[in-house]
Parts: sequence; structure tokens; C-alpha cells
Amino acid sequence: SSQPGTLPEEAVAFLRTCAVELGWDTARYRQRRTEVLAEIARTGTYAHTLPELEIGAKLAWRNHTRCIGQLYWRTLVVRDRREVHTVDGVLDELERHQEAVYQDGAIRPTITVFAPEGPTTPGPQIVNAQLVRYAGYRQPDGGVRGDPANTGLTEELVAAGWQPRSGQFDRLPVLVRGSDGEGWRELDPTSCPDVPLSHPDHDWLADFGLRWYAYPTVSDMRMEIGGVSYPAAPFTGWYVGAEIGARNFGDVERYNMLPAVAKSLGLDTSEDRTLWKDRALIELNAAVLSSYAAAGVHLVDHHTMTDQFHRYTQARRRSGEVVHAEWSWIVPPITASATPVYRESYDPSVLRPNFFRG
Amino acid sequence: SSQPGTLPEEAVAFLRTCAVELGWDTARYRQRRTEVLAEIARTGTYAHTLPELEIGAKLAWRNHTRCIGQLYWRTLVVRDRREVHTVDGVLDELERHQEAVYQDGAIRPTITVFAPEGPTTPGPQIVNAQLVRYAGYRQPDGGVRGDPANTGLTEELVAAGWQPRSGQFDRLPVLVRGSDGEGWRELDPTSCPDVPLSHPDHDWLADFGLRWYAYPTVSDMRMEIGGVSYPAAPFTGWYVGAEIGARNFGDVERYNMLPAVAKSLGLDTSEDRTLWKDRALIELNAAVLSSYAAAGVHLVDHHTMTDQFHRYTQARRRSGEVVHAEWSWIVPPITASATPVYRESYDPSVLRPNFFRG
Ligand code: HEM
Ligand code: HEM
Repeated sequence: SSQPGTLPEEAVAFLRTCAVELGWDTARYRQRRTEVLAEIARTGTYAHTLPELEIGAKLAWRNHTRCIGQLYWRTLVVRDRREVHTVDGVLDELERHQEAVYQDGAIRPTITVFAPEGPTTPGPQIVNAQLVRYAGYRQPDGGVRGDPANTGLTEELVAAGWQPRSGQFDRLPVLVRGSDGEGWRELDPTSCPDVPLSHPDHDWLADFGLRWYAYPTVSDMRMEIGGVSYPAAPFTGWYVGAEIGARNFGDVERYNMLPAVAKSLGLDTSEDRTLWKDRALIELNAAVLSSYAAAGVHLVDHHTMTDQFHRYTQARRRSGEVVHAEWSWIVPPITASATPVYRESYDPSVLRPNFFRG
Repeated sequence: SSQPGTLPEEAVAFLRTCAVELGWDTARYRQRRTEVLAEIARTGTYAHTLPELEIGAKLAWRNHTRCIGQLYWRTLVVRDRREVHTVDGVLDELERHQEAVYQDGAIRPTITVFAPEGPTTPGPQIVNAQLVRYAGYRQPDGGVRGDPANTGLTEELVAAGWQPRSGQFDRLPVLVRGSDGEGWRELDPTSCPDVPLSHPDHDWLADFGLRWYAYPTVSDMRMEIGGVSYPAAPFTGWYVGAEIGARNFGDVERYNMLPAVAKSLGLDTSEDRTLWKDRALIELNAAVLSSYAAAGVHLVDHHTMTDQFHRYTQARRRSGEVVHAEWSWIVPPITASATPVYRESYDPSVLRPNFFRG
């Protein structure tokens, strides 16, 4: 990521963007600039107004090069919880976040913004990469039960006193560092339920007992707006099916289901040339798409998503705007060349506001 | 691509590489450097020795960031035809090239190097992007019969006197610009035969009448070694199945076979969510793999190829070497996330020697 400037530089650059995006006239821009610079000089930081926070969060989304959902940026619901910085305060608001997101399978793109980093305070922090994570238990034989991506978090939570279970899909509590220390809580699953996986044509698939949660809420990224960092700013969108069907269940380092699915499909797995991995992946993805539809949970397939993104980039280009995106994150993990984004290229430079890790 | 230096700079940089790769001692390196610099001062260019040409072509291959086959670089057969620059001379040697490559379905990685660009002569040039190209005929309704990638070349050849036919897979003659003008010839297909496509489980696939040539010979790239350009240096490897099954037959801008294949498979094409494109692509790729196997023509599947490449990159890294590659060209167009290259990253910088277009 590009290097940020000093706080006054970043603040003023952001206010210029606000002037354009929010339609400020010159007088208003100058007045706000004077105010902010004075506040920085006096306190070492400054507070965004609510409209600034809202547009800042929306632009952070639009600017994020790894998000194919950026085209929906205008629809983001911004929950301003900057007054919250204690462990329990954050955990309570995470429950509220999930309730605000989810309405009977519909998912509203939402971000909850907690207290910013200040000149002397770090701001609260959520340790979990996403609000829902399934435990990964290291086994004596070197394997993992559950999600291998989460073994570290699982061990951290066990060290913090959480009682491990033994399932493939045990939800981990959320671990928070706040102004009053560290603590964890199991969030109520009602407003982000699991969707059990079945296949429209292959009954045996349900017997694997696979399931995945309704939508992702990424919780370990720092949002940066106008030089101010919000270390806890969890955000939610809906899933692209292939994230679950191809990556979470297909990756060798994750649930690694291709060999078992191929076997149940009766495929010859003795040679790569039989394309058993390719076929097993498609059926896993078909299972994800039909299971979410059956459960009434919104989720988009990789064809529809890339199509929407492609139309968005074309529209922006027509109006002389640049789309910032990383090709390798935009192109789906399966059937890439049959999607309209495959033959495109994008400007990968990282603008601010944006989301960062670390 | 990175900018080249002056001819003496590029020449000396290449001779340093030769010293390392060919095991020259310091005396030998210095002597050759003196010789080459004197030759450049006297004539405006210099001639590579045969060992220099051979290692230069191999390094051009190894350095090419878009070639997943680069791991085989040591095996390249270099045919030194630098004395050839006339139209007929080049066309004769292209026939010999195909004969040298192909032995009963086995394919030997081969490059034929024609006269270099000199201070006053451009060197011969092959207009066709590959030695085998199927004609693309623009139709009155705006569609194309044959390969839409080749409509421009087809029109150029018709203007030069070639008699068009009306098939889906009509081989175009090769158009050459030499020291004695321009000319074209239909190459003998015997040493690069077509492979007819059928499917192991779906008999109807053969009825589409699809076919593809045994191996690709890229003929429109300039090879640059030590500051010297070889504008005609056609090279051959074997196919990765997905180049044919996913791109040539699957791409909407190419033979665009997914809708027809999906229909014959009985898939519901009313919605993207049924994954009909994904399934049709897999069956096209299965047809390619089994048809080339049945014809005894060497071709590698995308799993085996990415696996080999991944082992090569690991071995090079272990010995402190850098692999230069463009991720987006290394990752296959289908089932990308199930291959070991998907989670890797590579250094995309372009070293010399290398192949360039234009
Ligand atoms: C509304 C529906 C949304 C869709 C369909 C969507 C889609 C995606 C996808 C497919 C990825 C790649 C994930 C991966 O491969 O690991 C991604 C990443 C990302 N998205 Fe979105 N997204 C949506 C909403 C949002 C929202 C609301 C935000 C923030 C306001 C956001 C910000 C990001 C960021 C920062 C990443 C990178 C995550 C990382 O590095 O782990 N997205 N998105
Ligand atoms: C031996 C087997 C080989 C395999 C399996 C292989 C594989 C590939 C593949 C899959 C591509 C991408 C093609 C595309 O998507 O359009 C490619 C491109 C390329 N390969 Fe190889 N290759 C082989 C031999 C060679 C040889 C012998 C050379 C040169 C000495 C070479 C140089 C290149 C170059 C320059 C490109 C870029 C072509 C372009 O830009 O159109 N390859 N190769």
C-alpha cells in the first residue's frame, strides 16, 4: 500500500474529496479545513463529522482493490459507535451489528465504526478475522478438525478460558481488546445462522454435514479516513458462492473436500487428467448456490457478480472515472475465463480512504 | 517491458550472463568482450557465436514471464538459420521446423532463428501469429465463420491472392516478409496434423466437427539477445489442454462453444446459477484431453502443468534463484484455486534475453 502523508496532509486531502463528493462550496471547504487544522494543532487528532464518517467509509469500500462488491458502495449503512471502546460495549454492539445486517435472509451492507485510534489511545480491536469463525483443532496426527485457517485463534481462545468442543463447525467466541482489557463472548447465532449444505441432484452430499454461515463480517481490518485510523470497524456484505464452494471447502489448506466429493461422485481420482478436481469443485459450488437459495439467504454466483462488476467498470470508465482493483482478486477462483472480467485489466493503486491490515 | 540499454551495454550484460551460464573464465570473458565491442564499433552490430545463440534462446524462454513451460528451458533445440532471409528460404525452413518438432505425436521444444535485424536491414518477418491459424470469415450478419481471432490475417491473405474457402477450420497460408519481398505458402499439414475432438462419454460432441492442431508454433514475436533482435524466431512447445478447451473453444470472442455444448448436455441455460458454463467448459476440456491422448499427441493438463511449474519454482527458490512470471498467465483459466500456483506470487519483472511483440 502507498505511504500515507502526515496527519494534516491526509486530513486536507480527505476534505478536498469531501468537497467533491458532498458538494461543498469553497467557503465551506475552507472553513472546515481551518477548523480541522486547528483541532489537530490543539489535540493531535480531529473528529469526523457524521457525514464525513459516512462518505469516508463508503469511499474506503469503493477504493478497496480486492473487493468485487465495491460497486454497491453507495448503499453502505454506517453505524456510528465511536463512543464505544470497552470490551462489553464492543461485544454488545457486534450483536446489534448482526441484527442490523440480517432480515430474514436479506443482507444489508453495513459497517459499525468503533472508537478511533487517538494520540494516546490505541482504540478497541477485534482479534477474530471475521465475526463467525469455526474452530480448528490440531490433532495428534498433524491434521486439523474443523477449519485449519483458525487453529491459531482457537488456541488463543482456549488459552483465554474458552472450553473447546470437537465439531467440524464449532463457532468460536469473539475476542476483543478494549480500553478495559481483553474479553470474549459467543455471539448469538440467530442473526447469522448456519446454512446446511445439500445438493439438488446428489443426496449423499448432505451426509457430509457441511454448513457455512449466512454472510461474512470482516473484523480485523483497520479503516483509515483522512489520516484517522479506526482499528475496529467490522463490515458485512453478502457472499459470492465460490468463496465458500471453491475456497473454504475446496482448498487443500481448508476443509479439503474435493477428494471425498469426487469419490462420492464415482470419479476416477487416480489421474489429474480425468478432471475429478474440476468436477468435484463445480458440484460443491452447485450445492452452495442451491442450499443458500433453499434457505432463503442472499448470495450471488460468480457469473452474476463478475457481470455486475464489469458493467460498473464500463459505466465508470464512460464517465472518465478509474476503477481501482486487483485483477487476481476480481477474477473468480473457478471458470475464470468464462467471466467478463478475465480479459480486463484494472488500476491496482491503493487510494485512501481504505481498509488495511496492520 | 523494461527499457533496454544501448547496444554495447546490452551486449556486455549478455556476455556476463554467458560467463556464468557457460562457465567462462575471466580471461575468456574479457577477450570476448573486447572482440564484441570492436565488432560493434566497426559494423554497428555483432554476431553471436553458436553457443551464445543457444544459451541466449534458452534464457529468453526461461525469462519469459507468461510461459508456464519455462521450466523445460534447458531442453530447447535451437535451429541456427541466421543465413536465411528470403521469402522462400524462410518458408522452406518453416516446413523443416515442423518436421524437426514432431515425431509421431512427440513434440520437441524447438526454435528456428532466422537472420537478425542489422544496422541497415530489418530481417525477415512472419506475419501470422502462429504457423497454424484457422481462417476467420466475416459474415454479412456481423458474425464470423471460423476463428474470429484471425479475421484480419484472413483478409490480408485474401488481398494477397489466397483463395478463401468456407470452413470452420481452414488452414491459412503463412505470410512472410523477406529480403526479396512478400510471399505466402500453405505449409504441409503432415507434421502438425489436426486432432478431431470427441468426448469419452458424449458421442454427440464429435458431431460438432471440432478439431485443433497438434501443437502451437508462435511466430510473431521478436527474440532479443544481448541487444540483437531476431524478428523471425518461431518457437514450439506442446499445448496445455485448457488453452484449447477453455480459451479457443470457450471464449465468447473465439469459437464460443459453451451454449451449444450446454444445450447438448441438457443443462438449463436460463440462469447463470445453474453453472451451465462451468459444466460445459469442463466437458470441452475433457474432450480435448481424451482426444489428444487418443490421437497419441502430447499435451499436458492444467493440473499436471501447474504442479510441475510449482515444483520448479520451489527448487529454484531453494537455490536462491528468482522465478520471473506473471501470475495471471500462470494460473489456468479454469479451476484455478485447485492448482498449487493459485496461492503463490511471482516476480513479474522482465529480464533480457526475452521475447517481445513489437
Ligand atoms: C455487498 C456485497 C459484497 C460482496 C459481494 C463482496 C465481495 C468480496 C469478495 C469476493 C472479496 C474477496 C474475498 C476473498 O477472496 O477472501 C471481498 C473482499 C473485500 N471486501 Fe467485499 N464484498 C461485499 C461487501 C463489502 C463491504 C460492505 C465492504 C466494506 C465496507 C467490503 C470490503 C472488502 C474488503 C476490505 C475486502 C478485502 C478483505 C481481505 O483482505 O480479507 N466488501 N469482497
Ligand atoms: C514445452 C512446452 C511449453 C508449454 C507447455 C508452454 C506453455 C505456455 C502457455 C500455457 C502459454 C500461455 C499461452 C496463452 O495463454 O496464450 C505460453 C506462452 C508463451 N510461451 Fe510457452 N510453453 C511451452 C514452450 C515454449 C517455448 C519452447 C518457448 C520459447 C522458446 C515459449 C515461450 C513462450 C512465450 C514467449 C509465450 C507468450 C506468448 C504470447 O504472448 O502470445 N514457450 N506458454
